[in-house]
Amino acid sequence: MSRGGRGCFITLEGIEGAGKSTQQTYLADYLRARGREVVVTREPGGTALGERVRAIFLDPALPDTGADSELLLIYAARAQHLHELILPSLARGAVVLCDRFEDSTYAYQGGGRGVPAARIEVLSNWLLQGLQPDLTLWLDVEPELGLARACRRSTQDRLEQETVAFFTRARAVFAARAAASPARIVRIDADADREQVSRQLLAAVQERLRL
Amino acid sequence: MSRGGRGCFITLEGIEGAGKSTQQTYLADYLRARGREVVVTREPGGTALGERVRAIFLDPALPDTGADSELLLIYAARAQHLHELILPSLARGAVVLCDRFEDSTYAYQGGGRGVPAARIEVLSNWLLQGLQPDLTLWLDVEPELGLARACRRSTQDRLEQETVAFFTRARAVFAARAAASPARIVRIDADADREQVSRQLLAAVQERLRL
Repeated sequence: MSRGGRGCFITLEGIEGAGKSTQQTYLADYLRARGREVVVTREPGGTALGERVRAIFLDPALPDTGADSELLLIYAARAQHLHELILPSLARGAVVLCDRFEDSTYAYQGGGRGVPAARIEVLSNWLLQGLQPDLTLWLDVEPELGLARACRRSTQDRLEQETVAFFTRARAVFAARAAASPARIVRIDADADREQVSRQLLAAVQERLRL
Repeated sequence: MSRGGRGCFITLEGIEGAGKSTQQTYLADYLRARGREVVVTREPGGTALGERVRAIFLDPALPDTGADSELLLIYAARAQHLHELILPSLARGAVVLCDRFEDSTYAYQGGGRGVPAARIEVLSNWLLQGLQPDLTLWLDVEPELGLARACRRSTQDRLEQETVAFFTRARAVFAARAAASPARIVRIDADADREQVSRQLLAAVQERLRL
């Protein structure tokens, strides 16, 4: 954590149906039982402003959102998320568990929608100025399996209307980023059942961090 | 107009109470009477997405919006405005009259709120890639006079709660930008009464553009 203070910043990444929110709850309970303050949050969203942005972003009534605009909205929500929640939480020593962060932007807007990574990188550097998660748990699920799981849930927002091809491209970006940053990103086999995924997750956290 | 097609892109700039929207209507009527298609728009806003962003931006219930987030929201709205309205209108030959654009970002977020111009410039270059208005009409009003005019109107949004000192800083940025870009930016004395301002405006348009 380059400028985040005393806390610990953990992100959960992966395509739809990887089980991120379930495992986030599991990990939060585990850490709280060990006496840590845990802040559970997500992107896009995480703040009142971010949830307003998320609503725009996911609204099927605004289907013609340009790629530039979508990307800038994501970074606007992220900026507020850092300013209002993530950085203050880390500064007072909390563990921040964030469902999606920077890697999802490269996977979804980059790999999924075809925005050049170099264009994302300009905004990323502009905002983050070297900040990185201490640990990223990449819950890697087969796109077909992930989508089948996601479709069993009740909500069907715009993201989940994307195709298997879209998620296959997004997954390839997660894989490339994990290969490029092995010290930060740990791949978790999320095709497995919930308990097995939790065990892998816990092993990664115990191995990489002192929590 | 570097990449805008056959149309003509005119922006109106200036602090609150300069009379931009009144003069925008005047100029639109004038140009329509001469047979031109005129698209009247504004920032932040100008599209359904932009109006949603504008509502966030002006909401007094979200007072702790960080400077980075505010700037990214402005650019998100601008990106959609270009994508959905400005560029298509210019491509088919229309005159686009836009109340506030890039110069306001430097004046308000830069001069007003103290965001370094170099930080704005990164986002500006990222989005605009050389695009510029053909003509910018800077309606220059004394801050005290502008605020007195603005306060007579019924709406009191967050912007208009700013102080004279804020608008004085913003005005200095407009002045510096006008000095740096004399071919694009024309100063209009907006302390004058409405008819005199309209006459100056028309003279500038007739002198600079073939409309």
